Amino acid sequence: MTDIARIAGVSSSTVSRALADHPTIPEATRNTIQALAREHGYVVNRAARNLRQSQTQTIAVAVPLGHEREQLISDPFFLRLFGHLADEISQRRYDILLVREPSPDAHWLGRLVQSQRADGFIIVGQSDQHQALNLAARDYRPLVVFGSELPDQIYCSVGSDNFEGGRLATDHLLRSGRRRILFLGPAELPQIDLRLDGYRQAIGDHGLSVDESFVLPAHFTGPSAHDAVRDLLARGVEFDGIFAASDGIALSAIRALESAGKRCPADVSVVGFDDSDLASQSHPALTTVRQDVPGIAATIVDHLFRRLDGEGTYSSTLPVNLVLRESAPDR
Amino acid sequence: MTDIARIAGVSSSTVSRALADHPTIPEATRNTIQALAREHGYVVNRAARNLRQSQTQTIAVAVPLGHEREQLISDPFFLRLFGHLADEISQRRYDILLVREPSPDAHWLGRLVQSQRADGFIIVGQSDQHQALNLAARDYRPLVVFGSELPDQIYCSVGSDNFEGGRLATDHLLRSGRRRILFLGPAELPQIDLRLDGYRQAIGDHGLSVDESFVLPAHFTGPSAHDAVRDLLARGVEFDGIFAASDGIALSAIRALESAGKRCPADVSVVGFDDSDLASQSHPALTTVRQDVPGIAATIVDHLFRRLDGEGTYSSTLPVNLVLRESAPDR
Repeated sequence: MTDIARIAGVSSSTVSRALADHPTIPEATRNTIQALAREHGYVVNRAARNLRQSQTQTIAVAVPLGHEREQLISDPFFLRLFGHLADEISQRRYDILLVREPSPDAHWLGRLVQSQRADGFIIVGQSDQHQALNLAARDYRPLVVFGSELPDQIYCSVGSDNFEGGRLATDHLLRSGRRRILFLGPAELPQIDLRLDGYRQAIGDHGLSVDESFVLPAHFTGPSAHDAVRDLLARGVEFDGIFAASDGIALSAIRALESAGKRCPADVSVVGFDDSDLASQSHPALTTVRQDVPGIAATIVDHLFRRLDGEGTYSSTLPVNLVLRESAPDR
Repeated sequence: MTDIARIAGVSSSTVSRALADHPTIPEATRNTIQALAREHGYVVNRAARNLRQSQTQTIAVAVPLGHEREQLISDPFFLRLFGHLADEISQRRYDILLVREPSPDAHWLGRLVQSQRADGFIIVGQSDQHQALNLAARDYRPLVVFGSELPDQIYCSVGSDNFEGGRLATDHLLRSGRRRILFLGPAELPQIDLRLDGYRQAIGDHGLSVDESFVLPAHFTGPSAHDAVRDLLARGVEFDGIFAASDGIALSAIRALESAGKRCPADVSVVGFDDSDLASQSHPALTTVRQDVPGIAATIVDHLFRRLDGEGTYSSTLPVNLVLRESAPDR
């Protein structure tokens, strides 16, 4: 196989996938490689191949909820990402084992890997599990994490450019004339902490300094975002912009504004994050940072299957862009 | 356990679940039953219990796609139902194995059951698998199917009142003055065939007769619904109403009308089915038959766990209702 890879000028993983008729390899490439393989007398030993690579023909998608025990599978962002992951996995004729871990301890991931119920693992969200993920990745290769790349990371992660997203959102609010901008989100999560870093960067770039009392904790689910905004308004604190770490948090904040008689965007502009289905269909429609969910899912599953084939993969950061709608217009 | 059930005046399954601290049993009931059990010296043998009831602590959700190979996990209706099923299952601390079967043969379900990868099975959609489901249900109890109850059925199904839904939708179109009403949907599926029966019933009830050339096959995905409407318009066929078997089909039909210069609802009223998120957010917003997806998911999982506890369960049909929006107003 290495010979064919050398002759075709591709990686041996590409050869391996081309011979297995993998849909990620363009048809022309597959045909070339298959012709080369025939020419050089290479025969795929499919049974041995399956024995080596796949014990269960199943990929596990695990959701650690150390940060937010109550989060549901039916959470819109999770479900959208899961749907795309499941499409990518089932197109490769693997089943999907969905594991929700509401109280992850230091060894949950080790136990899960040792259970041998899946050939590979996708972890959705780093939650508060960075060290557990590092630990598991030391001796277990077919593991890919939806999340941000962190400085001391040894596992493979795929996620959006959260820093740039936070910077874009906040820069947009500042350019449209907003000056007193709240940050709302669960900054204990690595991906959200990077969005907060982007918020700080944009404020600094405009020659302003961050008012730490404007950085407010809020969960993805439940009333915390709504209540934080309500309490601030009740205390008479003045602000004219909000950067929310998710569209759901943004919509909760807008409801709190409306309950207090404030208008969005006339009094307070609001930018969300994700570009979920909600964002385009809410009133006002949300200006938000778009995550490329289909692209993230495709990259996660591509990396995982390359790891199953014995290849190494680097962590990937996908670009984001700002989607302008009503809740934070240009001015 | 039977004694405690008799004294407490509940089923032995309720006792069993109360002793296991099951969230479906109200806390007060659990406390009463647990106190009775202590009083009567009943001790839960948790290890034996687990051995009996749960080999894998996993429930499989299987999707046979005999009818429509291309349907994706990310299909909005499927994903919404799956999210609610997954919440119900994971609240009971079970994992979920998602199996998509694009080419089910007569024995796929038997093989799946025999693989012992799950303690129980939820089949989403009868597809063209009615006989395979009957076959599996003969010797396998923990199996519940999302679908309609059919005359010669021995498996347990949970689904909406599809007949009444079809009747309500078509009756509404007729009462609003529409007379030439298309049916669009994959009537080879049992649930959709019942919606078509309801359509026929409503037309008969109004003293009219069904024009069979108005009953048009259309798939849930792809361009078939759009193309069927486009071709009819191109042939100059006159119609003033459409009952579509899903919201997705309804929206495809509306796009075909608009491309041909027809207005919805001014020229043609359209009623969908499901009340998916799309329905309220499309333009025009869809009049549609609402399926109670959270209720269906809760009932499926309740029935499955009662079956795991050794109880029998009957098939259940949940009520539907018509949601009036712009695409088919009252007049």
